[in-house]
Amino acid sequence: MKNSFYKKHLVDITHLNIEDIRILFKRASEIKKIVELKGGDNRLQGKIMATLFYEPSSRTFSSFVTAMQRLGGGIIPLFSMFNSSAVKGETLEDTARVFSSYADLLVVRHPELGSVRQMARYSSVPVVNAGDGIGDHPTQGLTDLYTIQQKFGDLNKLHVLFIGDLGHYRPVNSLSKLLSLYPQIRISFVSPKEVPIQDGLKKYLVSKKVKFIEANSFENILANVDVLYVTRVKKEYMTESLYHKIKGSYVLTNIFANSMKNNSIIMHCLPRIDEISHDVDSNSRAVYFSQQVRNGMYVRMAILDMILRKN
Amino acid sequence: MKNSFYKKHLVDITHLNIEDIRILFKRASEIKKIVELKGGDNRLQGKIMATLFYEPSSRTFSSFVTAMQRLGGGIIPLFSMFNSSAVKGETLEDTARVFSSYADLLVVRHPELGSVRQMARYSSVPVVNAGDGIGDHPTQGLTDLYTIQQKFGDLNKLHVLFIGDLGHYRPVNSLSKLLSLYPQIRISFVSPKEVPIQDGLKKYLVSKKVKFIEANSFENILANVDVLYVTRVKKEYMTESLYHKIKGSYVLTNIFANSMKNNSIIMHCLPRIDEISHDVDSNSRAVYFSQQVRNGMYVRMAILDMILRKN
Amino acid sequence: MKNSFYKKHLVDITHLNIEDIRILFKRASEIKKIVELKGGDNRLQGKIMATLFYEPSSRTFSSFVTAMQRLGGGIIPLFSMFNSSAVKGETLEDTARVFSSYADLLVVRHPELGSVRQMARYSSVPVVNAGDGIGDHPTQGLTDLYTIQQKFGDLNKLHVLFIGDLGHYRPVNSLSKLLSLYPQIRISFVSPKEVPIQDGLKKYLVSKKVKFIEANSFENILANVDVLYVTRVKKEYMTESLYHKIKGSYVLTNIFANSMKNNSIIMHCLPRIDEISHDVDSNSRAVYFSQQVRNGMYVRMAILDMILRKN
Repeated sequence: MKNSFYKKHLVDITHLNIEDIRILFKRASEIKKIVELKGGDNRLQGKIMATLFYEPSSRTFSSFVTAMQRLGGGIIPLFSMFNSSAVKGETLEDTARVFSSYADLLVVRHPELGSVRQMARYSSVPVVNAGDGIGDHPTQGLTDLYTIQQKFGDLNKLHVLFIGDLGHYRPVNSLSKLLSLYPQIRISFVSPKEVPIQDGLKKYLVSKKVKFIEANSFENILANVDVLYVTRVKKEYMTESLYHKIKGSYVLTNIFANSMKNNSIIMHCLPRIDEISHDVDSNSRAVYFSQQVRNGMYVRMAILDMILRKN
Repeated sequence: MKNSFYKKHLVDITHLNIEDIRILFKRASEIKKIVELKGGDNRLQGKIMATLFYEPSSRTFSSFVTAMQRLGGGIIPLFSMFNSSAVKGETLEDTARVFSSYADLLVVRHPELGSVRQMARYSSVPVVNAGDGIGDHPTQGLTDLYTIQQKFGDLNKLHVLFIGDLGHYRPVNSLSKLLSLYPQIRISFVSPKEVPIQDGLKKYLVSKKVKFIEANSFENILANVDVLYVTRVKKEYMTESLYHKIKGSYVLTNIFANSMKNNSIIMHCLPRIDEISHDVDSNSRAVYFSQQVRNGMYVRMAILDMILRKN
Repeated sequence: MKNSFYKKHLVDITHLNIEDIRILFKRASEIKKIVELKGGDNRLQGKIMATLFYEPSSRTFSSFVTAMQRLGGGIIPLFSMFNSSAVKGETLEDTARVFSSYADLLVVRHPELGSVRQMARYSSVPVVNAGDGIGDHPTQGLTDLYTIQQKFGDLNKLHVLFIGDLGHYRPVNSLSKLLSLYPQIRISFVSPKEVPIQDGLKKYLVSKKVKFIEANSFENILANVDVLYVTRVKKEYMTESLYHKIKGSYVLTNIFANSMKNNSIIMHCLPRIDEISHDVDSNSRAVYFSQQVRNGMYVRMAILDMILRKN
């Protein structure tokens, strides 16, 4: 069984194929059982993961930190890199070289698109992209796909609807690209007209012959979808005036949620502000708290394991 | 031997009885021996503790972090939560749900009264209150009681004197409530008239029939007490003008300290500013550095252990 | 084999002799083999290291944090102490007393000269100086000496050239003092006239009868040196106007680098701003990324090990 993650960077997810993903998800499910039984094991003893976060993110940080330690590894927990050598004027390239001398793996979050790829080029150890600006968030995309797969088994024939600020929301990019691997998938993108999906994603999906549509309202589509993926407006990535124009464009209430198929799921990669009403939390379709967060830990454990160990 | 801490929150301490405390302190003393012998053990391997600190506190943070690791557990070391999702507008409820998916236990400090209880309601794992505004600080209260018990053995018949800013100092609340379990205890509260003990505490002590007095000077009481607990003025919880009015109201010098019984002890939960002179540090009655801090680690180890393991 | 580091502070390095250093470097080389083979081991299980950083330094912090965990120890990862009790007005002495109750070893960085020695006086556990203002940085000095020794074997008869802001650069102090142990060593100090080496260092070297010169240009010396140590201008330790006057005084380009002996090495303790051109990075003489950083981890592992374990 080929482990195509071993010693490789995970900056983007376009190099992964269905078999790579199948193997990863198998590993995640095995690890899930171990965690449920005894919290974890020691397979990554002697390995150190450095988290280089140039943008605040308590949840992605924590997900990686818990994942690494549940497998017996150690951590270099750098949470606000702007309080560090960055302020002394060091380049990202030099930072990558230094930290890859200390750690066996770097997990990098950065507000600028392309920054993580740049660091990967100079790192002597694998780099995992934990979000690079409006670019990608591969471990979130894989978490989301795992959550969908756990629910539906077969990933073909599904209809996935994304709503919200699709222009700035990197998990949309990562998950959409992953979904494009499944030929019969259908995707609907619903956003305010100011923040549609990025051109790059659109071209990518066209090149992969994915059936997708773009729209500005979701009410008519809702009854047909298997997966509803709600996103937050990324306030920190836009002007104040744009934020005030588009915030609150879509709010998923329980009335809407109940109009969905019984067998459908509602996802959100959190934090949630007001785009999903709190009464939806207890809707049986809602998986964002009950499964998606926890799956993020299992999938990240699987990713760390497969990057750091051959077998 | 019933472990009433197992899988329970520790937000307040009013649900604990004398037997619960006896069992906890027995565990703390066992753990103390293990730490002295070999630093710790691996009983909490596979368990992860998240520290969610919304208020700076290097010492409580560090006490929990060292406690968890000395028992073989891992940590999610979040120290300044205001640099995190909180700034994106997430509610405490959602934060509780997310972090309880990653960790086996949450340790929360927050400047607002009631906030920790609120998080506990939504957490799927036990929550330990590491200080909630002017509310409670149960692990400190238990540490303080353990320190007193180690000195005197029998907790009855003691006379405990608190001095300082009693209105804002949460360990006063927690320790007083614990002391109320011992029927013959006597408590004297001495504070500037602007910052007496809180009404809620007063009512609680009355309902428990505790013998206590309130006063504004401590000189006459000092010779009679077994335990003197000195507190810091909580500058961060009051106006500048109130601070300047009450700061320096009481300063424990060695002359005062030496007027105390030989067999008495002087406590402070630190940091100390100027309310205890430095020459008191070497007074044989002073236990704040020599015992109280270290006991904090042992008691927190015992609490983590009993919450996370049944036996 | 006497371990003179055991249970001792490492605030300065002037108490170390050649035999102490030989034993330390032997340990570092043994540990290097273990790390290359399996990442580390568990010899420091049950030990906790607290990093008390009053000045940002992601790389020294990370080097210690990875070192401790690769030996099985735990960490109290305090990175920005100015967000902590310090703001409540606690003295360094009290902080030392508190943290030495939690941890088995304190690693302290502080912007003020003498502050770390002050803390060591009140700590009940060993304190390692991770940089105290314009004072010392002993673990960096030892790392640098180890890097030189690994290259040349015999440390006598070498010619070492330091260039840059020598007045504020503490590794210059630490390494120069260590070099003074080797009677035939020659040192050249080249700096802008505003930032020569400190008087204290000069007196120390004179007292040790070290052959050294001071100059303002390095071009003529370059062809004769075995070790070129380039330093960063410590912007944060000087006025804006002085910074603008001296920055860019020396820039090591590949043309200069290639004029050095084939068997020489170029060092820098990083972060590097613009004092070494990027094309020098691939020069065979450059060891700052390829060896110096990684050696920092091995040497710190050896130091932690020798301070915390007798054998």
